[in-house]
Amino acid sequence: MIDRNVYEEVSQAPIGVFDSGVGGLTVAREIMRQMPKERIIYFGDTARVPYGTKSKETVTRFSKQIARFLQSHQVKTIVVACNTASAYAIEDLEAELDIPVIGVVKPGARMAADVTRNGKIGVIATEGTIGSGLYSKYIKSLREDATIYGKACPLFVPLVEEGLWEDPVTVEIARRYLTELIDLDIDTLILGCTHYPLIRSTIGSIMGEGVTLVNPAYETAVALKKLLAEKNLLNEVTPPLGSNPYQFYVSDGAEKFKQFANSIIKYGILSAKTINIEEY
Amino acid sequence: MIDRNVYEEVSQAPIGVFDSGVGGLTVAREIMRQMPKERIIYFGDTARVPYGTKSKETVTRFSKQIARFLQSHQVKTIVVACNTASAYAIEDLEAELDIPVIGVVKPGARMAADVTRNGKIGVIATEGTIGSGLYSKYIKSLREDATIYGKACPLFVPLVEEGLWEDPVTVEIARRYLTELIDLDIDTLILGCTHYPLIRSTIGSIMGEGVTLVNPAYETAVALKKLLAEKNLLNEVTPPLGSNPYQFYVSDGAEKFKQFANSIIKYGILSAKTINIEEY
Repeated sequence: MIDRNVYEEVSQAPIGVFDSGVGGLTVAREIMRQMPKERIIYFGDTARVPYGTKSKETVTRFSKQIARFLQSHQVKTIVVACNTASAYAIEDLEAELDIPVIGVVKPGARMAADVTRNGKIGVIATEGTIGSGLYSKYIKSLREDATIYGKACPLFVPLVEEGLWEDPVTVEIARRYLTELIDLDIDTLILGCTHYPLIRSTIGSIMGEGVTLVNPAYETAVALKKLLAEKNLLNEVTPPLGSNPYQFYVSDGAEKFKQFANSIIKYGILSAKTINIEEY
Repeated sequence: MIDRNVYEEVSQAPIGVFDSGVGGLTVAREIMRQMPKERIIYFGDTARVPYGTKSKETVTRFSKQIARFLQSHQVKTIVVACNTASAYAIEDLEAELDIPVIGVVKPGARMAADVTRNGKIGVIATEGTIGSGLYSKYIKSLREDATIYGKACPLFVPLVEEGLWEDPVTVEIARRYLTELIDLDIDTLILGCTHYPLIRSTIGSIMGEGVTLVNPAYETAVALKKLLAEKNLLNEVTPPLGSNPYQFYVSDGAEKFKQFANSIIKYGILSAKTINIEEY
């Protein structure tokens, strides 16, 4: 446990980011790019990944454990980088925590509502995220006349994790998933799972140039910066050299995580530690 | 908690069977077929599935929790129906438990050693099972001159769970995984993951008639019957009508589990209950 007074100011405390596994690193990467002075504590629940096929109750219980772990590291805010956890658990987390919480669903929904011209928006995500209907609810609250078409794409995560990013098999599976969205004449598509931006070019080439792809990871970093600024929580002090501003924790397989993570984040992941999340 | 004296004789107590999820139902089904008088308590760890990509430490910790849960139901023996848990945790479970424990790896290895003619045996399984080298170790202990070729097939489980059992995409992926085993001239192939028997016909048509497919689920039920007979633990008394001899527990999504389970087991799954396995 870290000492309560380790940071001079709350604004210097780290941002907590969590995901079911490695996918949330695409969100962490955007935060690093857009807010280079911020410290980050990342947690990937690699012992219990994936979340996308699991129930609301279970994903919420897991998310609360992780929030307790992150709070034990004095985070000033928590970013729920996992779409499924954002869809299922964000309201429970907001009710329980006394620090700001931000998920990836709302920022992604807002951008989609902004950029669509014909009001027809597709969402591709896990079974859980689609089933929750949360993207649809948020977009509707911003743009009443929008029509939202959700499509669960359960094979994308294993295909991405196998590294088949531009493989004919991935193209074939993507074509099957996406054809109905093309037929429905959508002009905007939300990549509603943190793994999907990694096969953005495959998805983009199938959807064609007329369809705008929205990446919630990027939009979340933008929204987070705004939120921290409003609450005077932006860190103005560059962490001292050698202080290791980025810390990574997982519930299983730290070494394997480190390898995958280093292929996504080029800032250098010094180390990753395994903890028993069930104890939180 | 069930009363300690609920069964008149230990032999009438249930057999505990566990798996990371639904795959172990192929083992439960074989036990039902071969030993119709036996009671079964099945646990599927659907909150933390899959195990195949997770570390030995984590899979062992999960397996011990599950063994404690099954023992709270007075099981007379435990069948580790998951290949990955069998490969990683069987020795720890044997050391810790005072009831007989049987995994799927040893019975599968024994049959492969028996049926091979040229001594060249392939094993297809998860990353974890292949990495453990346990199939190889057991086969070698029975047949020193055997050569074992392991191949991890991580996309088979998601493809099976998506229902693409005879789909061109599954055929293409299977061809990629299996070509090197064909080139190595194996005459026996162990289906070293409980999901794989469900795509047996796809695998069989690629391997050709000259290759014998070994299904550890079947061999495990045979070995279990022998083990129970040796220890005078076979149930000779048919459970009374209406006593529900098969009970199913999961750590998440009981309703979803029930649906999938009913497509595999035709004896009728009356109900499945969700429990919090982290409490054991």
